[in-house]
Amino acid sequence: MGGRLKEARLAAGLSQRVLGINAGLEPSVASARINQYERSTHMPGVGTLANLGLVLDVPLPYFYAEDDALAMCILAFHRGSGAQRRQLVHLAKGINRPKS
Amino acid sequence: MGGRLKEARLAAGLSQRVLGINAGLEPSVASARINQYERSTHMPGVGTLANLGLVLDVPLPYFYAEDDALAMCILAFHRGSGAQRRQLVHLAKGINRPKS
Repeated sequence: MGGRLKEARLAAGLSQRVLGINAGLEPSVASARINQYERSTHMPGVGTLANLGLVLDVPLPYFYAEDDALAMCILAFHRGSGAQRRQLVHLAKGINRPKS
Repeated sequence: MGGRLKEARLAAGLSQRVLGINAGLEPSVASARINQYERSTHMPGVGTLANLGLVLDVPLPYFYAEDDALAMCILAFHRGSGAQRRQLVHLAKGINRPKS
C-alpha cells in the first residue's frame, strides 16, 4: 500500500507535506505521517486513505493493488471517460461470464 | 467493504461459518465475526481480508471498490486468463496515455 501512495504522489508532483495537508492532516505532522505511510511503518485508516485518494485522484482500491497491471486498470477505470469505462466493463463482462 | 464480502461469499455459496473457518478464524467465533464484517460493525485488518480474498478468489482491491462496475473489472482482471488480462491492460494503457 505504501508503494502505491508514493507512486501516486510522485505522479501528481506533490511533496509529502503538501499531500498530507491537502488530505486534512495537521501541518505539523503531515510530512512525517505521509513518510510513515509510504514506508508502511504506519498504516492509515480507510478514511484517511480515501482522503489521500481524493487529493491524488486515485480510487481506494488502487492502494491495495499488489499487481501493477491491476493498479493500472483500476486507474484507467477511475480516470476514463464514460465511453472508455463502458469499453472496460464490456470486456470485463465477457471475461466474467460463466463458461457454458 | 462489508457488502462486497457478503456479495463474494454468496457468489461462492459459502456460509459465514465455513468462510470464517477456511480463512483461519477460530471456529467458535467464525460465524459471528464474518457477520460483523458483512454488516461493517467490525472492520477486519488487511491481513484477514487478504485471507478471506484467497478463500473467495477475489483480490484485496475488490473489497474496497465502491463502484459495482469497478468491482466487476477488478474481478475480471483477477480471474481472467493471460490473454484476457492483456486485453484489459491494452485498453487501460490507451485510456491512461496522456492526451497530447
